[in-house]
Amino acid sequence: MNYEASIDAALQRLHDEGRYRTFIDIERRRGAYPHAVWRRPDGTERPVTVWCGNDYLGMGQHPVVLAAMHDALDATGAGSGGTRNISGTTVHHKRLEAELADLHRKEAALLFTSAYIANDATLSTLPKLFPGLVIYSDSLNHASMIEGVRRNGGAKRIFRHNDLDHLRELLAAEDPALPKLIAFESVYSMDGDFAPIAAICDLAQEFGALTYLDEVHAVGMYGPRGGGVAERDGLTGRIDIINGTLAKAYGVMGGYIASSAKLCDAIRSYAPGFIFTTSLPPAVAAGAAASVRHLKTDRDLRDRHQTAARTLKMRLKGMGLPLIDHGSHIVPVHVGNPVHCKKLSDLLLDDYGIYVQPINFPTVPRGTERLRFTPSPVHGPLETEKLIRAMDALWSHCALNRAEQSA
Amino acid sequence: MNYEASIDAALQRLHDEGRYRTFIDIERRRGAYPHAVWRRPDGTERPVTVWCGNDYLGMGQHPVVLAAMHDALDATGAGSGGTRNISGTTVHHKRLEAELADLHRKEAALLFTSAYIANDATLSTLPKLFPGLVIYSDSLNHASMIEGVRRNGGAKRIFRHNDLDHLRELLAAEDPALPKLIAFESVYSMDGDFAPIAAICDLAQEFGALTYLDEVHAVGMYGPRGGGVAERDGLTGRIDIINGTLAKAYGVMGGYIASSAKLCDAIRSYAPGFIFTTSLPPAVAAGAAASVRHLKTDRDLRDRHQTAARTLKMRLKGMGLPLIDHGSHIVPVHVGNPVHCKKLSDLLLDDYGIYVQPINFPTVPRGTERLRFTPSPVHGPLETEKLIRAMDALWSHCALNRAEQSA
Repeated sequence: MNYEASIDAALQRLHDEGRYRTFIDIERRRGAYPHAVWRRPDGTERPVTVWCGNDYLGMGQHPVVLAAMHDALDATGAGSGGTRNISGTTVHHKRLEAELADLHRKEAALLFTSAYIANDATLSTLPKLFPGLVIYSDSLNHASMIEGVRRNGGAKRIFRHNDLDHLRELLAAEDPALPKLIAFESVYSMDGDFAPIAAICDLAQEFGALTYLDEVHAVGMYGPRGGGVAERDGLTGRIDIINGTLAKAYGVMGGYIASSAKLCDAIRSYAPGFIFTTSLPPAVAAGAAASVRHLKTDRDLRDRHQTAARTLKMRLKGMGLPLIDHGSHIVPVHVGNPVHCKKLSDLLLDDYGIYVQPINFPTVPRGTERLRFTPSPVHGPLETEKLIRAMDALWSHCALNRAEQSA
Repeated sequence: MNYEASIDAALQRLHDEGRYRTFIDIERRRGAYPHAVWRRPDGTERPVTVWCGNDYLGMGQHPVVLAAMHDALDATGAGSGGTRNISGTTVHHKRLEAELADLHRKEAALLFTSAYIANDATLSTLPKLFPGLVIYSDSLNHASMIEGVRRNGGAKRIFRHNDLDHLRELLAAEDPALPKLIAFESVYSMDGDFAPIAAICDLAQEFGALTYLDEVHAVGMYGPRGGGVAERDGLTGRIDIINGTLAKAYGVMGGYIASSAKLCDAIRSYAPGFIFTTSLPPAVAAGAAASVRHLKTDRDLRDRHQTAARTLKMRLKGMGLPLIDHGSHIVPVHVGNPVHCKKLSDLLLDDYGIYVQPINFPTVPRGTERLRFTPSPVHGPLETEKLIRAMDALWSHCALNRAEQSA
């Protein structure tokens, strides 16, 4: 058995398809976001502006977050030293779970080391609680939900993205006596489109299904207190399980679900991905709790975020670039070819000091490769102007199409 | 469909079996480990000594670790702001991976958010690289390895714990042309016994199998530079993939694999659990790197750890308590009943301020419930004396058996 040849073949496939990934070494400067230092493979450095991060509100450099982290480090040290059950539960974990339960007006919340594992662990554990469970999963759900749904080995039905008729058809085809769950996202991160949450809740009610909503790209940013799109639309009470992250708008790390006290208790008790892993460092939990608490009242930051997104989209549209615009804070520009996409990204970085990662398959379907910009309150008029000019020049230089590619 | 009734039933099963878990809220005091504050559910506090943590060397309060974390927080902020591929790779991640590759004398290392996900993601991705892969898994492997092996949907063979004859029998029964991998641990955390690493490597060589060794309960603690039991025994070169954690002896958070550059590159490129999740906070990576670097030379701390374990075991044996002793740093005392085990733990906490979590099913098999002590260099003679006296008194009080239960 030639193991090395198998690995070579697997890597060659990626090179052949133009989707082999090279990580860019970027370090942001606290207090100077979105400015960062890019360290080239040869060790030389260059200042750059980050345009593709998921720290959507710049909370990673917010003084209340950093002070909470420094304080917890000083008080209790680096790691938690154990799983939640074996010496790894601190007041910081409990306070954060209380903040999150309050954020979503749910009885309880349950912390995981990431939203990835929150999705994976919860969705793969639910069939243990509800034998025979059929999971209805949107076709564009995030990889972590796909992994969780797949792993349970239980029944799953994939409905076409945001397609209510297809979802209804699949629900109606099933035995009414079986337990059911509809799993979907509020904002889909690659196109930036919203789910028809109210209509999905209507279907769930009609067919007696539970609802599972991933608000990873919405918490902190939507709703009067940052509770997500469900909060903005007054639908939180109709969602049985909300999944969120502390690593994007909240600027730290970790993930969670918010739900009924009993459901959180059952997941806590039955999910290996929760039980058998070291809990988050207390300082991380403290920083995240400070961020969640702060964003419950800082509406101004949310407004400035939306303004930054609207401004960028208006400017890109004005230049006739093929923008995908569904009204959210996510700004994807369609390229449609992995090699072009990579080339544009390289030129932006090398020639303009603008960092935006090319998004290729399998993150998006082949033929829909894109540059995905994430404007934020820390991206000022100067950064936006520089980006616009660079994109305009590159689009002309590369003779790429303009308006007709628009989606 | 009555979802609440299903949840109630699932929770009731745990109560009925005496294995419903209640988390104890413990916060260690930096600079005063193993001392901590226990917050009771009613909000009152009590000082306690932690005897069940996995911060085996007390590195969570080490000044070099904390200084590195404070510095990185000041320099770059709280979170990484992205996945490794999309703006979430910093010099701290790269430095840590270089430290880990050097630690294990491997070409490369790959960071994950936890050792749980490192196991799960790597073991479930290997069958994509080696079509037809048969995984041979020790029957006492950790939950994260079980989940990873299970998820791949590929062929698996469970060999009886540390049973070389059984492993040989299963290897011999298979088509020699198929790719194979033997997955096992160096130190099994619940009994504290070691794997016959050399003999397993011999079998792997004979049958053309890859070796995958989980050193989660050994890195930092065994080997001249903390490279684990494989390093101690001069076997690192015979292990294809080493899995380790940064959350136990290194005192921070995160997990990794160390292997050939090509294999790390392939896992990096194909594992959803690596690709689609926010990278560790730079400050966590910086703290972990400082810890790994420090423990490459601090042999004294390793020696004091082993001395602390030997001392505690000698004292417990001297009292005739049913100790499970395989010569490692882990000190389990057999109780054999979930209700007694919980009761002993409660009495130690309430009456003596000693915190040791009861270990019940499913973490260990039913009938082998135990108290598992983790002595460390920060547990001094006074703490050990108090523990010994408390155990002696409780064993008499509860009329528990002594020597004859010894394993």
